[in-house]
Amino acid sequence: MQLAMVGDKFIESEKLDSAYLDYGTFFGDGVYEVLRSYDGKLFALEEHLARFKRSLKEVDINGIDINIIRQRVLAAFGKSKLSNAKIYFHITRGAGPRDHAAEGLEPRFFLMVSDIEDYSDQKQNGISVITVPDTRWKRCDIKSLNLLANVLAKRAAKRRGCQEAIFVDEKGFITEGSSSAFFAVFGNKLRTSPLAANILPSITRHFVVQIAPNAGLAVEEKQMKAEDAAKADELFIAVSSKDIVPVVKFNEIKISDGRPGKYTKLLISEFAKLVK
Amino acid sequence: MQLAMVGDKFIESEKLDSAYLDYGTFFGDGVYEVLRSYDGKLFALEEHLARFKRSLKEVDINGIDINIIRQRVLAAFGKSKLSNAKIYFHITRGAGPRDHAAEGLEPRFFLMVSDIEDYSDQKQNGISVITVPDTRWKRCDIKSLNLLANVLAKRAAKRRGCQEAIFVDEKGFITEGSSSAFFAVFGNKLRTSPLAANILPSITRHFVVQIAPNAGLAVEEKQMKAEDAAKADELFIAVSSKDIVPVVKFNEIKISDGRPGKYTKLLISEFAKLVK
Repeated sequence: MQLAMVGDKFIESEKLDSAYLDYGTFFGDGVYEVLRSYDGKLFALEEHLARFKRSLKEVDINGIDINIIRQRVLAAFGKSKLSNAKIYFHITRGAGPRDHAAEGLEPRFFLMVSDIEDYSDQKQNGISVITVPDTRWKRCDIKSLNLLANVLAKRAAKRRGCQEAIFVDEKGFITEGSSSAFFAVFGNKLRTSPLAANILPSITRHFVVQIAPNAGLAVEEKQMKAEDAAKADELFIAVSSKDIVPVVKFNEIKISDGRPGKYTKLLISEFAKLVK
Repeated sequence: MQLAMVGDKFIESEKLDSAYLDYGTFFGDGVYEVLRSYDGKLFALEEHLARFKRSLKEVDINGIDINIIRQRVLAAFGKSKLSNAKIYFHITRGAGPRDHAAEGLEPRFFLMVSDIEDYSDQKQNGISVITVPDTRWKRCDIKSLNLLANVLAKRAAKRRGCQEAIFVDEKGFITEGSSSAFFAVFGNKLRTSPLAANILPSITRHFVVQIAPNAGLAVEEKQMKAEDAAKADELFIAVSSKDIVPVVKFNEIKISDGRPGKYTKLLISEFAKLVK
């Protein structure tokens, strides 16, 4: 490279921070995880590391020692001294001249620890969601940095006064939320989309399915259409940073009496036992 | 944010370069352009700026003055003193705490100028391509930083000793290359996919379509299947950095006599007139 500009300033290529040549930025060429702690205890670290390892493999980023990632997560969490922390980390293919098929780059690790936001209002009163067409790529089972469709969906939801966007595929079936898994309760049945190439194997989803029987729910992994979801007795989303959040309005339709449902509340209590 | 890690080093959040919090990296939330000069003359700057403006609008990144972008491109090109330059630039939504639906971020501009690589061998002797399933998102008409599917496709091509991967959609139709438009010649007809939401409105494609009659070709914007392309008289790709590159092998099948075809060579000559 001859020269670069950052904003309106010229920078000689030797003085450019390599972060500007990160393949994460050029191509979204990397994978990430977000996990949290509850009262000083990290939740599901091993599950997140296992998924991260799989994502790395699927995008062919090699040579990463997951033990080192674990050590870094633990060290950063300890150093942060936060009891309710959100930990984000990613690995990108590397940095260098922009080339779709570059070889021999050094993968780049980045992590940040933040205080978890207060989601108690959302958890107590529920959120509103809209549906949007699922325009994402076909490998949403990989937790990659290609999230523009998710960003555009969430922005559309926000413009409509909603807190989450739920993706609906070309055949009318719900896949998942823009940053969450999606669940519906019909009677004493809990329904969610089966895992597939267009669904992230959500870790919170995994635990919800596991604890559902404790809340008296039978799990049905089955696709559902938006019109079916609108008629559910209860709806909720699941996401690592907030675990379970009731959905009380779906495409402007009130779900039941517009208040978090009893099974959803039971699941929230069951989940709270898991994270202790 | 409390603290960050870059590689194995802790960094206090105040000391972290904002490039690490770029939405380009977190989400691929930005759009870009690549253009080039021929012998000291920039080619199709206005077309690239117009497409860039459209991409920005489609992803809802607002308040960008295209005149300023034009000035920066011209200033960087001048300063580089390169006569055959490749200019890459992007704008991302901004930098800040990671939030899918953040408001009020300051968009970030980045540009780099490099010497164009020598593609004369590819242009003279042609390249080999393979087809791969088109797993990209559904808005490839936007020139966005969400390019992981393209990266994975190009890597797969390279592993097979090929220089480009051609995407084939679920119905078996060719869309375009991982970083190029795709064309086939049948008799005196030039065929390429019609523009749609899953096709980038390639600027080189636009000019190829425009000059085709000068080379004695009638243009048919019509979808084609991989098996049809394999039987074409000539194949080529079109991309800003190299303009027209003959394809002589398609999924290991030799195209005609395995040498660049006469119409492709005529188009290369016609294109050379355009860029003067």
